[in-house]
Amino acid sequence: MKQINGGVSAPKGFKASGVHCGIRKNASKEDLALILSDKSCSAAAVYTQNKVKGAPIYITKKHIENGYAQAIICNSGNANTCNANGLDIAEETCALLSEHLGLSNEDIVVASTGVIGSELSIEPFKVGIPLVVEKLSKDGSDKAAHAIMTTDTVLKEIALEFELGGKTCRIGSIGKGSGMINPNMATMLIFITTDVSISPKLLQKSLSNDILDTFNQISVDGDTSTNDSVVILANGEAGNDELKSEDDDGYKVFCAALNKVTLYMSRMIAFDGEGATKLITCEVNNAPTKITARKISKSVISSSLFKAAIFGSDANWGRAICAIGYAEGDFSIDNIDIALKSKAGEIAVCKNSGALAFDEDKAKKILSENEITVLVDMHNGTYSAGAWGCDLTYDYVKINGDYRS
Amino acid sequence: MKQINGGVSAPKGFKASGVHCGIRKNASKEDLALILSDKSCSAAAVYTQNKVKGAPIYITKKHIENGYAQAIICNSGNANTCNANGLDIAEETCALLSEHLGLSNEDIVVASTGVIGSELSIEPFKVGIPLVVEKLSKDGSDKAAHAIMTTDTVLKEIALEFELGGKTCRIGSIGKGSGMINPNMATMLIFITTDVSISPKLLQKSLSNDILDTFNQISVDGDTSTNDSVVILANGEAGNDELKSEDDDGYKVFCAALNKVTLYMSRMIAFDGEGATKLITCEVNNAPTKITARKISKSVISSSLFKAAIFGSDANWGRAICAIGYAEGDFSIDNIDIALKSKAGEIAVCKNSGALAFDEDKAKKILSENEITVLVDMHNGTYSAGAWGCDLTYDYVKINGDYRS
Repeated sequence: MKQINGGVSAPKGFKASGVHCGIRKNASKEDLALILSDKSCSAAAVYTQNKVKGAPIYITKKHIENGYAQAIICNSGNANTCNANGLDIAEETCALLSEHLGLSNEDIVVASTGVIGSELSIEPFKVGIPLVVEKLSKDGSDKAAHAIMTTDTVLKEIALEFELGGKTCRIGSIGKGSGMINPNMATMLIFITTDVSISPKLLQKSLSNDILDTFNQISVDGDTSTNDSVVILANGEAGNDELKSEDDDGYKVFCAALNKVTLYMSRMIAFDGEGATKLITCEVNNAPTKITARKISKSVISSSLFKAAIFGSDANWGRAICAIGYAEGDFSIDNIDIALKSKAGEIAVCKNSGALAFDEDKAKKILSENEITVLVDMHNGTYSAGAWGCDLTYDYVKINGDYRS
Repeated sequence: MKQINGGVSAPKGFKASGVHCGIRKNASKEDLALILSDKSCSAAAVYTQNKVKGAPIYITKKHIENGYAQAIICNSGNANTCNANGLDIAEETCALLSEHLGLSNEDIVVASTGVIGSELSIEPFKVGIPLVVEKLSKDGSDKAAHAIMTTDTVLKEIALEFELGGKTCRIGSIGKGSGMINPNMATMLIFITTDVSISPKLLQKSLSNDILDTFNQISVDGDTSTNDSVVILANGEAGNDELKSEDDDGYKVFCAALNKVTLYMSRMIAFDGEGATKLITCEVNNAPTKITARKISKSVISSSLFKAAIFGSDANWGRAICAIGYAEGDFSIDNIDIALKSKAGEIAVCKNSGALAFDEDKAKKILSENEITVLVDMHNGTYSAGAWGCDLTYDYVKINGDYRS
């Protein structure tokens, strides 16, 4: 498996583009993205668990109910959530696009990200859709990735090439997400394309399993957004025998490739958390169940107090054990070991749930790096899980103190 | 019912004191508090739900199992949590104090607050206990309140006088709490004294009911601490007929007085949240159940994004409806109204879960006050609840970026 260029347009038969259509005031910022496959794709998706959902989510859900789709259109600058005419706008967007492309409305996945409760007109889409269709190209993934960014500071894109059933296959992704991130299912916006041939049902299964240990294990601020979705399209152009069952040769290979993509995107999103200066990984080992391991690791990377301590390069492990203690689940808190690690080294700070004398200067040096791992050994089972978050900084407050202006 | 001076020493037969015993380096900061009743009291308490608990909690739980206690001793500067000798230190503290006072160990409530996982020696208690006993007085509540403060910026103390069964009764409280506050049961440290005569069982019932709508409804940072406790002692010196049943005349009066104290302390703690500049109250009305109303209101005041928006006086109600949407429970999100209120006025910002055109300048003016209320009407039932929190500011990050130094 090797990393390649091209993002979502790397897989065979996919093109992408991004343009400015006028939803954002800043004319130099793309705000409309399109991803198109030459032919119909198996489609799968997972959505936010927030009861308040963006209008596009209802439309997308309806459109991919049959397991197939061919294009993804997404705007930034407005979440199209809590708008009286939200469903109409989302449907009309699909109608405008399908007309231009000669597809049916049900072939279109639609998504929006930005401010909640701000009126959205169809006019920018009328302008933008012909433009974004015209710009479609094999090099367009970057532009599409730009067009879906909000407070993101880093473009999030990846593509991989791998062998499956004797064929060379590709998988690519673009994504966005920086604040309002505590995916609980779903998360921010992630679009994945692949030319692997796989049935819609098995594609959904692979995605639903994967996110439990990737997107659902990241948190920036504990806020589960209204619009977040992960969508994957698989057009089969790699020519492998269609994957239909978990027992099929190649399914494991596909899942491994998918996981490499989703893990990369999860880490990217956590690292680019609003105002973040550091990526925090928490690895929990020897927990009594997989679910408990997930809950414990996510609890640690979600603690505001621990996140602020990491910002200050302060080895305040007491806040980590506090966050372990309030994680849901049935587990022993008597023999917990905690160590802190970065490329500057590793240091044990807690043994058997008690303080260890440690070199504060060394700890400071380790925590001054920008990728920090918290290693937790529960000594209470055999299950492991990881979670990804970021530090809590002055800039998070700054960005969110006046996001609408 | 009227407010009086004297805090925890206002009720008849109670004295208090606070001294510096050496747990903190700063000799001008009291770090050991004592509250003593002349005679044995009905005692009740609620504790943190964190699985990792401070050693004092185990000892206090054991000591008040029989329903009675007479003194409360509490240190700040060290939480006595995750210390190998923690239970010994907590027990020895009780033994030292009971010996000085001629009580039995089981009469003593012990509590600690401060850094987790930092070794604690018995030496400061050996020095401090004779001193803190000597200083006991009817004017000592202020000193005791000072002695339990950590990052608190405001002294938290109240006392009330009221009539019950023809007798004049008093209830008083001191408390601390500023960070690591997301009580789930219990919260920070709250000590309450009263001279009302009430059975231990009924006292526990009144306290356990009360906290559901007071301390459990506040949040500063979503972190449920390891040491938090609310303890109430009732010595009966007011001379009323002992309250034994919920049907007794006077029980409602007692609960009302208790609630006035706990509500005051809850608001004080939220307002003094680490780095906070504003108190945020969320009032939810017309929810389908009481529990749902509580969850929704608490979800709003706990949202980092909404808290940061309030810091910036930004009427970003989309973040409030997002937090409503991810609150646990079964409720309709179709007809939610949201308004913002302060002493500068009130403004409706969301109607039927959709945007309302509103005067941004007026909203800014309302949100520039330091006590903000978010009014949520669910139009989906008849139940109400409130919750209290604070804004998320640069100073929260500053305080927690390097708490241990």
